Amino acid sequence: STVLDPLFLYIDEHQNEFVQRLGEWVAVKSDSSDQMLWGEIQRLLNMTANRIQEMGGQVEFADIGTQQLSNGESVALPPVILAQFERDPNKPTLCIYGHLDVQPAKKEDGWATDPYTLTELNGNLYGRGATDNKGPVLAWLHALETYKATKQEVPVNLKFVIEGMEEVGSDGLDELTRQRKESFFSDVDYIVISDNVWVSRRPALTYGTRGSSYFFVEVDGPKLDLHSGVFGGSVHEPMTDLIALLGSLLDHTGKILVPGINESVAPLTEEERELYKDIHFDLEEMKKPIGVKSFLQDNKEEILMARWRYPSLSIHGIEGAFSDKGSKTVIPRRVIGKFSLRQVPNMEPVVVERQVKEHLQAVFAKQKSPNNLKVTSSVGAKPWVANLNDPQYIAGRKAVKVVFGVEPELIREGSTIPIANNFQEVTGKSVMMLPIGGHDDGEHSQNEKISRYNFIQGTKLFAAFFYELSKLQKDP
Amino acid sequence: STVLDPLFLYIDEHQNEFVQRLGEWVAVKSDSSDQMLWGEIQRLLNMTANRIQEMGGQVEFADIGTQQLSNGESVALPPVILAQFERDPNKPTLCIYGHLDVQPAKKEDGWATDPYTLTELNGNLYGRGATDNKGPVLAWLHALETYKATKQEVPVNLKFVIEGMEEVGSDGLDELTRQRKESFFSDVDYIVISDNVWVSRRPALTYGTRGSSYFFVEVDGPKLDLHSGVFGGSVHEPMTDLIALLGSLLDHTGKILVPGINESVAPLTEEERELYKDIHFDLEEMKKPIGVKSFLQDNKEEILMARWRYPSLSIHGIEGAFSDKGSKTVIPRRVIGKFSLRQVPNMEPVVVERQVKEHLQAVFAKQKSPNNLKVTSSVGAKPWVANLNDPQYIAGRKAVKVVFGVEPELIREGSTIPIANNFQEVTGKSVMMLPIGGHDDGEHSQNEKISRYNFIQGTKLFAAFFYELSKLQKDP
Ligand SMILES: [Zn+2]
Ligand SMILES: [Zn+2]
Ligand SMILES: [Zn+2]
Ligand SMILES: [Zn+2]
Repeated sequence: STVLDPLFLYIDEHQNEFVQRLGEWVAVKSDSSDQMLWGEIQRLLNMTANRIQEMGGQVEFADIGTQQLSNGESVALPPVILAQFERDPNKPTLCIYGHLDVQPAKKEDGWATDPYTLTELNGNLYGRGATDNKGPVLAWLHALETYKATKQEVPVNLKFVIEGMEEVGSDGLDELTRQRKESFFSDVDYIVISDNVWVSRRPALTYGTRGSSYFFVEVDGPKLDLHSGVFGGSVHEPMTDLIALLGSLLDHTGKILVPGINESVAPLTEEERELYKDIHFDLEEMKKPIGVKSFLQDNKEEILMARWRYPSLSIHGIEGAFSDKGSKTVIPRRVIGKFSLRQVPNMEPVVVERQVKEHLQAVFAKQKSPNNLKVTSSVGAKPWVANLNDPQYIAGRKAVKVVFGVEPELIREGSTIPIANNFQEVTGKSVMMLPIGGHDDGEHSQNEKISRYNFIQGTKLFAAFFYELSKLQKDP
Repeated sequence: STVLDPLFLYIDEHQNEFVQRLGEWVAVKSDSSDQMLWGEIQRLLNMTANRIQEMGGQVEFADIGTQQLSNGESVALPPVILAQFERDPNKPTLCIYGHLDVQPAKKEDGWATDPYTLTELNGNLYGRGATDNKGPVLAWLHALETYKATKQEVPVNLKFVIEGMEEVGSDGLDELTRQRKESFFSDVDYIVISDNVWVSRRPALTYGTRGSSYFFVEVDGPKLDLHSGVFGGSVHEPMTDLIALLGSLLDHTGKILVPGINESVAPLTEEERELYKDIHFDLEEMKKPIGVKSFLQDNKEEILMARWRYPSLSIHGIEGAFSDKGSKTVIPRRVIGKFSLRQVPNMEPVVVERQVKEHLQAVFAKQKSPNNLKVTSSVGAKPWVANLNDPQYIAGRKAVKVVFGVEPELIREGSTIPIANNFQEVTGKSVMMLPIGGHDDGEHSQNEKISRYNFIQGTKLFAAFFYELSKLQKDP
């Protein structure tokens, strides 16, 4: 089209600049799990704000309060960027959400390259945050830059919500959304999020995410670590208790054994089952990048449903036990097992929390242990499902067709983006997820990457999405 | 007595020097679990050798070979000190064993004081290695120094075997003993080890130790860590498998569930049962220092038997899972569970190893997991039991009576000192364990200590033991 062609040309011609800027962003160690690195998050927020201001936007750093540290001190959370541009009442208003913080990453975790040095190999751009979520946030900014640089009118009113605490649960953002419901969000028509990935080589639109709660199961007993030779066999070891507790959570088929959990899952309709048939998903191709020999389920539909519309429970590790290399013979005095539970409609995080706690307490009672059990949980994000007939989904499908020449797959997402449900619940606006990352990007893993192809075509997709959304408004 | 009185006076008058020297030793970070610190072990071996040489001894640094690192490199193990003094054929020959290496210790593990700065508080000397085993090794040297300084003839021929790799399994020492059986060890009459603690406020002689094997249960699956949101519910998670494996090892009563283990334990004789009745062991007093509300057994005898003459299994931790503070939602690709199994007569480490592996393989087969299981084990020290009627036990009892005014408790030791069994098996000599550490010393724990009282009275005990052993030789 005469509108999109010059935009796409600009994007192709400036792709090396775009990649270079991604390198600058990846180099910022914005790991939100480490409070010592919150200054880096602020630095990247500043870089982003400057970029938006250079393009004519107004930026507010919205305060989202403080976090209580374990030592009792309070520290200010990194603020949230709320940005907007001059408003044209004849254009639809699109609010883009993204986050600048990343998961922890250390070279010695098994990265082939330095996680904070963007490295291009065989068309892939490796680095922590490349796909989650720095690449997509930059692609939105580059799509806007492209309109400005080619002197075309931006066809939508744009707003940005960019945070720095997503990977640790987006504390404070929900409250901020609530506070700004009648101001910043009042004239928003659509909220779009690009913080997930495709499930195959085909582009996708995402209409649902799982919720998540994180559980800490603490067993503490002796007042100090004990020598297993001296005391082994005579004391109730916290680790023995904890292993029994963790072992009671799920069976070898992945089935969650906490009573009440499976019963609260929304029943599968025939219409919903049909959606799964169209997803391109090659079992062998999905096994390869993650290196597993088989899945818990036998066929495509069941695997996808297990990831998207059924709950799952993963045990992540134990704090306080011996975790280094080698062979220490200690009896740890206090251990904290950690697991998360991905939730789906119609599970309620508050109810799930109670079910898990009651279950663990019942198992612990059978242990007849004099140790202390403490179960706490955090996050508790709710699952989210959207309406596929909403205008922005139609615009998204058209934009995908224009850029990639195929219809997008209509998918759900197993991982949790609390903001999708929060935005929808609080603002009542239409929310869509429009991923540009590849299915094998390895977000949260070693060797996270985004391909140059996805990063650049994704930028075009976003530029086209602005256009299709405005066209739909004028000529629905 | 006219012999012992001046010795005891000297020890009392020089106690501050002795404590100061212990401080110098504790300050050496001789943590054998960390290969980077082996140089510190060598430094302490040198300090010890100098001290022995100053007192007229001949020191050999015996080579015990190399260790293969995980990267394929070989590094030389710290050598073993073999020391001897001019020999008088009319005196019995006593060989003293000790070790200079320590368990890992970091202030942030929960130490109230810096673990490598000996700190005296309320009569206790806190520091890593204070009781295990630097304090006792120094007490032997100070006992010898006392004879020399007071110009009394040392009534026994002394030899020393002092190593630097005990805490990681005394690799190479067994082989060295075998090699020197017909030379260094040929004229040894008695081997004495002071590397354990009393079980009450009363001094003790120790006639048995448990053996130990350390097991590594590795489950590996995906080729990289996975996002639990994306993949949770569809993959066989290595942690789920590992938790099931670890959970199959023992029940909540501490009973080991590996078939064959309990059946191989030597039956309890009436005579042996009688020995337990005399042990002073106050349940409440034993609970306090370790801060437990109850033990797995209800009465003194059963608790002691559980620690000394029955096997036990302790799960120490997991390598490869998330172990930091906070909440990471990773599915670890490869996890290694670690546990140790304390062994007693008539268990055979080789048989135990097979039983454990077969058990774990059987449990894993039921998991129907596509992941890989690898079970490896190390150390495999054998349990040890001595003859209580041996002359050095009689001398030991007399020395205790002289210094402390009470009969020693005849005890066994739950923890593993592989060298006790190895010395007895290889050399065929009488082996005794003569502890000077207090029951609440916390070896291998945070806030390890030896009391000034035990350190100084222990030095007297060793001096008296030389004397009683020689008297027994002359006048049995
Ligand atoms: Zn993200
Ligand atoms: Zn993420
Ligand atoms: Zn020791
Ligand atoms: Zn030790």
